Amino acid sequence: MLQFIELLAVIAAGTFGVLLARRKGMDFVGVFSVACMTAFGGGTLRDLFLDRHPLFWIQNHHYPLIVFALAIATSLARKIPKVVERALYVLDALGLGLFSVVGAGYAMEADTSWFIASLLGTVTGTFGGVIGDVVCNELPSLFRSAPLYATCSFLGCWVYLLLRTAFPDQFIAIGVGIVAIVLLRLVALYWNIRLPEFSPADADDRRQP
Amino acid sequence: MLQFIELLAVIAAGTFGVLLARRKGMDFVGVFSVACMTAFGGGTLRDLFLDRHPLFWIQNHHYPLIVFALAIATSLARKIPKVVERALYVLDALGLGLFSVVGAGYAMEADTSWFIASLLGTVTGTFGGVIGDVVCNELPSLFRSAPLYATCSFLGCWVYLLLRTAFPDQFIAIGVGIVAIVLLRLVALYWNIRLPEFSPADADDRRQP
Amino acid sequence: MLQFIELLAVIAAGTFGVLLARRKGMDFVGVFSVACMTAFGGGTLRDLFLDRHPLFWIQNHHYPLIVFALAIATSLARKIPKVVERALYVLDALGLGLFSVVGAGYAMEADTSWFIASLLGTVTGTFGGVIGDVVCNELPSLFRSAPLYATCSFLGCWVYLLLRTAFPDQFIAIGVGIVAIVLLRLVALYWNIRLPEFSPADADDRRQP
Repeated sequence: MLQFIELLAVIAAGTFGVLLARRKGMDFVGVFSVACMTAFGGGTLRDLFLDRHPLFWIQNHHYPLIVFALAIATSLARKIPKVVERALYVLDALGLGLFSVVGAGYAMEADTSWFIASLLGTVTGTFGGVIGDVVCNELPSLFRSAPLYATCSFLGCWVYLLLRTAFPDQFIAIGVGIVAIVLLRLVALYWNIRLPEFSPADADDRRQP
Repeated sequence: MLQFIELLAVIAAGTFGVLLARRKGMDFVGVFSVACMTAFGGGTLRDLFLDRHPLFWIQNHHYPLIVFALAIATSLARKIPKVVERALYVLDALGLGLFSVVGAGYAMEADTSWFIASLLGTVTGTFGGVIGDVVCNELPSLFRSAPLYATCSFLGCWVYLLLRTAFPDQFIAIGVGIVAIVLLRLVALYWNIRLPEFSPADADDRRQP
Repeated sequence: MLQFIELLAVIAAGTFGVLLARRKGMDFVGVFSVACMTAFGGGTLRDLFLDRHPLFWIQNHHYPLIVFALAIATSLARKIPKVVERALYVLDALGLGLFSVVGAGYAMEADTSWFIASLLGTVTGTFGGVIGDVVCNELPSLFRSAPLYATCSFLGCWVYLLLRTAFPDQFIAIGVGIVAIVLLRLVALYWNIRLPEFSPADADDRRQP
């Protein structure tokens, strides 16, 4: 079950990468590379930060193959239909939930503090998109005012962390954590709930006082 | 004493990250993330390059909490007063000194060559800002003509490396190395000493001969 | 022999970094840093992903020294002559071949799947340039329509992987793999063979449905 959700999440994250790379007018190398970054970037950071080896996409060596097939398939498609894209947002929310909770769980296994675990969970769930945006020369959309994304992940990680000490059965904590993130994300998307933005008022430059 | 300097340095580097993110019109997620990158980026690269685990901010798990509090505090503040910003440059110079010397020391512990140790010291002291700039879609200010920054770190690392072989007492080398970097940096800031820039004359593009 | 090719490849990749940094109007710190990124970036990613320590440029500690000398030498030169630049493309092709095949070999040593090995070989050969481009605030040229580069590396890795199971003598596989990549690259450069680009038609933005 979790395996199957993870697979869907990789596909959803990879497809967002494909869309991003296509908007930038890249060729197949770019489309595949950016798709890998959005799909595997967050988990790779987590694995490197926690010194987990082999990396999850080297271990699950069919994941890069799936993204490869995805990049070929979408290269042939002229346009991604709107209904597919809407489905992608739901799959992506599912992936956000799963990756965040699993990431926080791995961090706890490595004996980090709760706060570090919630941060690493959020990084696992969200930083693939940040890496993709940075490589595509865009200000990361995660850092700008948009329907809550990292915030859902962060809050859901705390739900998971609190439940896992309360219940001996791991699956309750994992399940409720994922559901919490997915619901938060869908609610944020539907009602367009955002954090306030800072107006870029300070015009001072670093190291030039 | 060194602990206390490190704490001040994290606060200074984090605040520069907050300022950078605010200039870009980010929301709280962006402000906190960029502040973490400028505060922990250099040390994280050093730890990954030298295979030191747990990473220093996972070990000192109160550091991300402090940056979190800092991001909240500065979010409430409308504008950072000029006098605080000037103080930040002094704190930042202190942090540059401490992080560089400590970074070079960790590298020597891992049996690198002196040149590698001086490079890793410089990376520890300066690359947080580079990562912050890159993620914020700016050409890294470290790489452009501005009052000497990486150069101070690099020279101070050599002062430290030379002294640590000469004196059995580690604290002399560490202390003098830090003081050298801080003084160099403040002198460079005060008299606006810079390296020359290259005028972007070559107009050839890579891989398109 | 392989050592000598590797040295030439580091010089070629470093020089491309120098040219890139100069086009951006950076100072010496920037020129040296970007040159290190283009020269060592791909191999560093490979070493981190495969958990190989010490990193190859910490082990071969004369490499950063050579790039340092290179950055000084090119700083003194006003302009790089066209004939040198043409020679650089040949050296770079040689480096692409060597790094890709060696990278794929290291991956196989770490018991990855063939597909992962071919990806890591390609990353080793090509991602130094990607990191340099990203840090210099440019869309990676690797991801845009240009004479085949990553594709040559990827195909050559498969030549190597197939031959290394067929022949007990490692050197045949390594040699033929490198020659295949160099030839593919030179052919692609000469006849300007490219992958098609995607026209940036999709105008949808991520997470803003």
